Amino acid sequence: MINQLLQGKKGIIFGALDEKSIAWQVALKAHEAGARFTLSNTPTAIRFGTIEQLAELCHAEIIPADATETTDLETVFGRSMEILGGKVDFVLHSIGMSMNVRKKRIYPDLDYEYFMKTIDISSLSFHKMLQTAFKMDAINPWGSVVALSYIAAQRTLYAYNDMADAKALLESICRSFGYIYGRERKVRVNTISQSPTMTTAGSGVRVMEGLMDFTDRMSPLGNASAEECADYCITLFSDLTRKVTMQNLYHDGGFSSMGMSLRAMRMYSRSLECDECPEVD
Amino acid sequence: MINQLLQGKKGIIFGALDEKSIAWQVALKAHEAGARFTLSNTPTAIRFGTIEQLAELCHAEIIPADATETTDLETVFGRSMEILGGKVDFVLHSIGMSMNVRKKRIYPDLDYEYFMKTIDISSLSFHKMLQTAFKMDAINPWGSVVALSYIAAQRTLYAYNDMADAKALLESICRSFGYIYGRERKVRVNTISQSPTMTTAGSGVRVMEGLMDFTDRMSPLGNASAEECADYCITLFSDLTRKVTMQNLYHDGGFSSMGMSLRAMRMYSRSLECDECPEVD
Amino acid sequence: MINQLLQGKKGIIFGALDEKSIAWQVALKAHEAGARFTLSNTPTAIRFGTIEQLAELCHAEIIPADATETTDLETVFGRSMEILGGKVDFVLHSIGMSMNVRKKRIYPDLDYEYFMKTIDISSLSFHKMLQTAFKMDAINPWGSVVALSYIAAQRTLYAYNDMADAKALLESICRSFGYIYGRERKVRVNTISQSPTMTTAGSGVRVMEGLMDFTDRMSPLGNASAEECADYCITLFSDLTRKVTMQNLYHDGGFSSMGMSLRAMRMYSRSLECDECPEVD
Amino acid sequence: MINQLLQGKKGIIFGALDEKSIAWQVALKAHEAGARFTLSNTPTAIRFGTIEQLAELCHAEIIPADATETTDLETVFGRSMEILGGKVDFVLHSIGMSMNVRKKRIYPDLDYEYFMKTIDISSLSFHKMLQTAFKMDAINPWGSVVALSYIAAQRTLYAYNDMADAKALLESICRSFGYIYGRERKVRVNTISQSPTMTTAGSGVRVMEGLMDFTDRMSPLGNASAEECADYCITLFSDLTRKVTMQNLYHDGGFSSMGMSLRAMRMYSRSLECDECPEVD
Repeated sequence: MINQLLQGKKGIIFGALDEKSIAWQVALKAHEAGARFTLSNTPTAIRFGTIEQLAELCHAEIIPADATETTDLETVFGRSMEILGGKVDFVLHSIGMSMNVRKKRIYPDLDYEYFMKTIDISSLSFHKMLQTAFKMDAINPWGSVVALSYIAAQRTLYAYNDMADAKALLESICRSFGYIYGRERKVRVNTISQSPTMTTAGSGVRVMEGLMDFTDRMSPLGNASAEECADYCITLFSDLTRKVTMQNLYHDGGFSSMGMSLRAMRMYSRSLECDECPEVD
Repeated sequence: MINQLLQGKKGIIFGALDEKSIAWQVALKAHEAGARFTLSNTPTAIRFGTIEQLAELCHAEIIPADATETTDLETVFGRSMEILGGKVDFVLHSIGMSMNVRKKRIYPDLDYEYFMKTIDISSLSFHKMLQTAFKMDAINPWGSVVALSYIAAQRTLYAYNDMADAKALLESICRSFGYIYGRERKVRVNTISQSPTMTTAGSGVRVMEGLMDFTDRMSPLGNASAEECADYCITLFSDLTRKVTMQNLYHDGGFSSMGMSLRAMRMYSRSLECDECPEVD
Repeated sequence: MINQLLQGKKGIIFGALDEKSIAWQVALKAHEAGARFTLSNTPTAIRFGTIEQLAELCHAEIIPADATETTDLETVFGRSMEILGGKVDFVLHSIGMSMNVRKKRIYPDLDYEYFMKTIDISSLSFHKMLQTAFKMDAINPWGSVVALSYIAAQRTLYAYNDMADAKALLESICRSFGYIYGRERKVRVNTISQSPTMTTAGSGVRVMEGLMDFTDRMSPLGNASAEECADYCITLFSDLTRKVTMQNLYHDGGFSSMGMSLRAMRMYSRSLECDECPEVD
Repeated sequence: MINQLLQGKKGIIFGALDEKSIAWQVALKAHEAGARFTLSNTPTAIRFGTIEQLAELCHAEIIPADATETTDLETVFGRSMEILGGKVDFVLHSIGMSMNVRKKRIYPDLDYEYFMKTIDISSLSFHKMLQTAFKMDAINPWGSVVALSYIAAQRTLYAYNDMADAKALLESICRSFGYIYGRERKVRVNTISQSPTMTTAGSGVRVMEGLMDFTDRMSPLGNASAEECADYCITLFSDLTRKVTMQNLYHDGGFSSMGMSLRAMRMYSRSLECDECPEVD
């Protein structure tokens, strides 16, 4: 049913690590939809992940790049235009990392060099990508750029730490550059605010499992999977959404519009009424 | 510390039933702050509540009125101006009721006459109040009108039913009339989106207790009480907030900006990890 | 490129009057995308419009109905399932009307019977549609319901009058019922907040022309047309957006995320600097 | 009328330059309301501004500090507690600067070192302030922290450049730290989103004048002045707003809730209808 939706379109997909990555699923769907594209990630991610396998499945070339380096980004856009034979029509930004989270620096004890690194990798890389593309005139009119975000940009989730701030900044850059790129070249820029998704980075984290249970029970349609997110990306890359820009689009089974669901409250209440359970304050 | 903040100001407070009512607390605080005002509620509410006691405490007269009847509202504004000796400076709207909730009609089985009644009482009464005041020119320039709302207007809470829709409509009327009243007479109109508050109507409802436990643990400052809400109202009636209008202002201990707190998650997780607890789907 | 996106899907489209209608364009696109559907509108609209022509183009049957009457809605869903051979997969609600606007009752002088009529036609009809479908179990799992809205639901536009309130209520009903329909049947419900669109009803209105010039210059991609809106609807009816629900989705060329654009400011400033122009206060 | 509202309260006010500064007005009002406080700004700002005059008026000491340096911030909080005789009750953050704006680097041609500087000065300084206070336990329970923001955080205004992104990040830090500081110490953290205000930095900028004319005509109550903003700050520092936290509060005469006003449209339309005016695209 997705057949031909991106027929003839060319793109660049940043951030696929392994098959749990949303970017990986987007690549598979974009391929299925008839698009041709290149893949990019950092040399380290390429080494530790399995992106070669994806490249083979999609007949795509991999262009290693550090997305915080504009020279690397110039290479990605330059090489992609060579390989694909012209400007691109879509770009996916699926990049984020916090050293404060990794090093377990809690929010009232942040390391500010780490913070700046979080911002540079998770937010500013998006501006650099857009600015590089803009200067090289590397995206066709009515092209579409999408970055992945998370509702922590609007609502605080304990332990999400400085990634919340990075996502808020990412979404702001989406609006700011969306205005410029729309006005000057008719290119649209949006973010998708996706359900919490268990990627390789997140698996095994107990906090993540509890949270995902909660958001799943809160959402009338349940959490959205990486594969479903990829489907949604395809619609945003297609010509059917040409006038959607500067938006943050929730793809979350309804979570963002929920205050309290019956299913989540049942689970919560069970704890309230439990006499045997260990005390919580 | 509240002394004199409303010195010389005149107002009308709609919706006090008994001491659990937010409107009751607002009356006490407004009195303490030096304001003079009248009280209004329906004849039934006056009979079943204890508003006479409040009237005595505040040296205020009670004007019975059905806020869905414009003739009754004309009486309230007319009599209030007589009693207080001139136009009023502030108005509180604390009115809401759903027959669908009372009669346990669930949301996919609403009775539409009840729905229209919910709308008329809980939302349209606010427009009627503003339109009546506007036509009678009953509010002084830089006067302030506040209605009480709830976050269900933005986010669905199971069992809140058609009151959610009524609150969304109330907040829209606040904006629409706030534009007109601001432009024409420099009167400001806002809603306060208050924490769930245990009033006489709500007490004993088990659903309400579970929900309030959840929102309290979610909110870094805990649920806001009726008394605290009254303090906040006083600031909005005072001359210190003259340029705040057409806003929905959250007074909720931070709940509206939370995705998940540590305290709420601990309670939730206890249930997740409980082997003895009864099954939930 | 839209080929097959709705292959095998069945639907109902409410509100097509003539070729300027958004619903008309949606019907054409849905037909092109391989869907089969019925059309519905009031007997009056059918008489005054040209919907028969559309029906012919799309091989669709017309079922006359007043969407404020649940019995009429039962007929629409019942007949549609007969004609199409089973439950439907998508529904479009494109219905709105304000007697206050028609009769030039300004916002601080509303007629409350007209107001209730505005609400009944423009907002409550959506609940009635959903409740009827829900009770008849007339929508397949993972079906999609869309209603058309406007940014006046969030931000006041002079002269938009009580339609602003009606749209706010419509969007609230979308969330409230979206929770129920999602939880119980995996059906999603969303609104599209479309650019101002010149339909037959709106043409010739001078206010409308000035406003559309402003929104067009404010939006980096310009106003979205009815046809583009139809494209966007198709993505929301397709299986590629299964986890998007309870959302209000802006399809407006970026207008909703703009504070002030260079192009709009240039036009505005020209007036500021004009010495010959007639005075404005 | 403001008398005694902050009686006995102690605070720190960052960012007063001269009498056009919002921080300056806040100092005057806080003094009038009975508070005692210290003033802080950078050595350069102290030299070029007239803050000594303010210090005299308010009987306040000035503590020079670069708010991007945590050691400087430690000095400010440490010295303030010494001078004032204990922990503080309120803090104002009124700090912002963009080198990209100053050096006329447009948004699709940003200098990334400047960008990081914008972020460090305008956003991260707020985190540093909060983290320093938190570690030193320098704010009393139920204390209040306010930072000044602008609607560019939500809606793009041409020429506002990377300050829009900095304000979005500032507001996110407000939520993130508001959660922590509320949970751990009952301190509230909010931002005020103020009307465009003509400060010394902004005066003479033509773009600013056109924009302020537009926002003034759009807002039913007109633009809010620095003095009015100061009044509003006092309510947020007072004990009457104890349960308001993690909020971005619009103090803008209604602008944020407007789509189009009659007054702004009249000015705009005059240009539309002008035959003599120079062409605009």
